Amino acid sequence: MFDHVVMMRFEPEADAALLERVERCADRVRAERDGIEAFFVQPNAADRSDGLTHAAIGVFASSKARDRHQVSPAHREMEAFMMPRIARIAVFDAEVGS
Amino acid sequence: MFDHVVMMRFEPEADAALLERVERCADRVRAERDGIEAFFVQPNAADRSDGLTHAAIGVFASSKARDRHQVSPAHREMEAFMMPRIARIAVFDAEVGS
Repeated sequence: MFDHVVMMRFEPEADAALLERVERCADRVRAERDGIEAFFVQPNAADRSDGLTHAAIGVFASSKARDRHQVSPAHREMEAFMMPRIARIAVFDAEVGS
Repeated sequence: MFDHVVMMRFEPEADAALLERVERCADRVRAERDGIEAFFVQPNAADRSDGLTHAAIGVFASSKARDRHQVSPAHREMEAFMMPRIARIAVFDAEVGS
């Protein structure tokens, strides 16, 4: 399995319309199913968030599945919409489990 | 399910002895099994890490299971060992899935 965590802060602050469109992007990513075990975008409930208000978390069958996701139309569409609206980002990638 | 992600940077930089001891702490956390679906500490392979070189990720059955973990002896031991060695931290918490 391969975990991909993108912690982020939007600029300006995320409003309901932005989050609704992000959720539709996430629906399309999930619909790909190609090696995607789980994928979601959620607000951050942690106190020690370091100002990072949301995260996208993807769990993939392998790093190869993650690579395929990165260049998929659904991910490219999500990235094109979100990146101009993101002020700061911190990414974590790791092979996990057996 | 409840996801708990702790991205971190150690100070001074993590060496093999530190990571070995962290792994033993993680073994004890996993051995608790009380609502812990997955728990690991891994180096960060991402380019856009924002200087956060490692992460601990816990997947819990519920936020209540996460609360129990926070006050468990295994977690307290891990925290007592790691916190003085951590220069920066960014935490993400969220209820996920159905």
